[in-house]
Amino acid sequence: MTLPIRPDLQGLKPYGAPQLDVRARLNVNENPYAPPNAVVDAIAQSVRKAAQGLNRYPDRDFAGLRQDLAAYIAQESHVDFVEPRNIWAANGSNEVMLHLHQAFGGPGRTVLSFAPTYSMYPEYARDTFTEYVTVPRKEDFTLDVDAAVAAIREKHPVMVIVASPNNPTGTALSLDEVRALMRAADEVPGGCVVVVDEAYAEFRRWGTPSAASLVPQHPNLAVSRTMSKAFAFAGARLGYLIAHETFIDVLKVVRLPYHLSAVTQATARAALAHHRALQAQVDEIRAERDDTVEWLRAQGWTVADTDANFALFGPFEDRERVFQGLLERGVLIRVTGPEGWLRVSIGTPQEMALFRSALLEVTS
Amino acid sequence: MTLPIRPDLQGLKPYGAPQLDVRARLNVNENPYAPPNAVVDAIAQSVRKAAQGLNRYPDRDFAGLRQDLAAYIAQESHVDFVEPRNIWAANGSNEVMLHLHQAFGGPGRTVLSFAPTYSMYPEYARDTFTEYVTVPRKEDFTLDVDAAVAAIREKHPVMVIVASPNNPTGTALSLDEVRALMRAADEVPGGCVVVVDEAYAEFRRWGTPSAASLVPQHPNLAVSRTMSKAFAFAGARLGYLIAHETFIDVLKVVRLPYHLSAVTQATARAALAHHRALQAQVDEIRAERDDTVEWLRAQGWTVADTDANFALFGPFEDRERVFQGLLERGVLIRVTGPEGWLRVSIGTPQEMALFRSALLEVTS
Repeated sequence: MTLPIRPDLQGLKPYGAPQLDVRARLNVNENPYAPPNAVVDAIAQSVRKAAQGLNRYPDRDFAGLRQDLAAYIAQESHVDFVEPRNIWAANGSNEVMLHLHQAFGGPGRTVLSFAPTYSMYPEYARDTFTEYVTVPRKEDFTLDVDAAVAAIREKHPVMVIVASPNNPTGTALSLDEVRALMRAADEVPGGCVVVVDEAYAEFRRWGTPSAASLVPQHPNLAVSRTMSKAFAFAGARLGYLIAHETFIDVLKVVRLPYHLSAVTQATARAALAHHRALQAQVDEIRAERDDTVEWLRAQGWTVADTDANFALFGPFEDRERVFQGLLERGVLIRVTGPEGWLRVSIGTPQEMALFRSALLEVTS
Repeated sequence: MTLPIRPDLQGLKPYGAPQLDVRARLNVNENPYAPPNAVVDAIAQSVRKAAQGLNRYPDRDFAGLRQDLAAYIAQESHVDFVEPRNIWAANGSNEVMLHLHQAFGGPGRTVLSFAPTYSMYPEYARDTFTEYVTVPRKEDFTLDVDAAVAAIREKHPVMVIVASPNNPTGTALSLDEVRALMRAADEVPGGCVVVVDEAYAEFRRWGTPSAASLVPQHPNLAVSRTMSKAFAFAGARLGYLIAHETFIDVLKVVRLPYHLSAVTQATARAALAHHRALQAQVDEIRAERDDTVEWLRAQGWTVADTDANFALFGPFEDRERVFQGLLERGVLIRVTGPEGWLRVSIGTPQEMALFRSALLEVTS
């Protein structure tokens, strides 16, 4: 019996890093600190209330959640224009990205990004029959603005996606770089949207502004965020996006009705009410990151400058061997990025100590 | 500023029935009975436990939830072959259907269904650039098996979707009808999958078997279910599907990683542990449905035979006027199905009494 699977999907493996119960899980850029008890209590209470009405469909437009997200982003990014109508959300920024591709992508259309970057981007494109094209970053993984602008002029993409801080390199964009992309995008016939994926924004170094501050002047700019990282909320799956209302209205057409459950809405709202407690260790993680980068460099490795909660380091002649050696010592990191490089998420001080000693053992 | 929205989406309105706070919400086929306190407690407790680890991504393969769903469906449908590997799940059967279209649909490919039927089917096709074709049902809304088989032979669809009980008509399929579709599907060059959408299966009349019992013999058959209807769990968004493991493996390739949150998994597992309590009123709803059908017929309306928790009735010269008149009296039903017909969900006895008196007032 033949199943009529799409020819381009045949033989593919599902996306996903190993989920292993080891001593130091440093492979998917999670916040290593579990939610404090007060937040757990608040979530349980919020869900209890929602559960009383679970026989009914959830608020399809998640008005309360949009309000809370707007208030949070206004505070976090020091922008004052964000209203609930400027917010979109879905089950992880994964689904936000899918909505973007469903709305703007499709056969004969091109999405442009800058390699190396997040390995899910080509999957969103594949799932929506959109062509995915990348322009290489510079050797230090910063954006090659001239090459980016030239590619936008030449390829006429419907969408430019740029992660800032970038995964897996940690590289953040300056506002001037975003402005340069916007100028090029504005000249694409038929229109071009620019999506700045700020999944790791809360970890950025002091003084690095969010692209959210540019949204008011650009109806074709969207800034994507997630509660999975700094928020210590990966298990709850809540991604969101900031853009003009006209932009959000387009996404509404392709979302599946009732895509955000009443339980997800209740859980996220409880977490947003406690965002300071959930992000209490973000400064610690930043400091641990800077220490990790410094230590790796002191050992002689090259490390990309990082504004995120991970570091890309290398090069290794046989990175698979290093990965396996670390894993044997209870440290799970990620084989990703250019050949020869490895990525480590920033964990607790104890986890990073384990990482350091294991790495010394494996590479000595 | 022009946004490069897909041409076929321009000017479209987002899908969705009105969400209004009226006395009788009988428009989206919800179970009118809220979860009992014991279930609310169990959900809150289960979520509290999950919340303690929300900084980590959820189990991407939702092993525990698949186990519980397998046990439930084995019991509900009297089938003994269902193992966790035969189960797929997503955020509502909406997302299960999207996965099916992403895996098997696409440009140049056709999905076949039988009209009138669920109004989301064309949206799944649209969102995946798949052609959507329908064959009309007979005048009594039963499947026209000869026409269905002829259409499968002629159109060579990659997928046949048939709802049983059908929405908005309530019509269930016999196993012989499903077998006839399977025979035709098995002859399609390149393969054809058949999806029986059993969202309303738990409301079917005694002796009506589930198509799940045919899955063992058919690697290209999938039976889709949901916890939104009989389970009184629409707000939690959990749909699932029963099929061969080889079929499920295809869906894994297109799912977004971590699509089911830890909170959704915890909530659904608590509900499945209390499925009898959540479905305690299914028999009552069935009886109320049969009474409603009988009463409508006694008033002179035509009513489709229904195995679901709703009834399609008519014809009305001006159904919009009837809909509005009911709404003014606090009764929200649905304008759907063929011109002239209306659909009412089965609510509590009090809600149905209000519906009956309002309908008499509006149509007298």
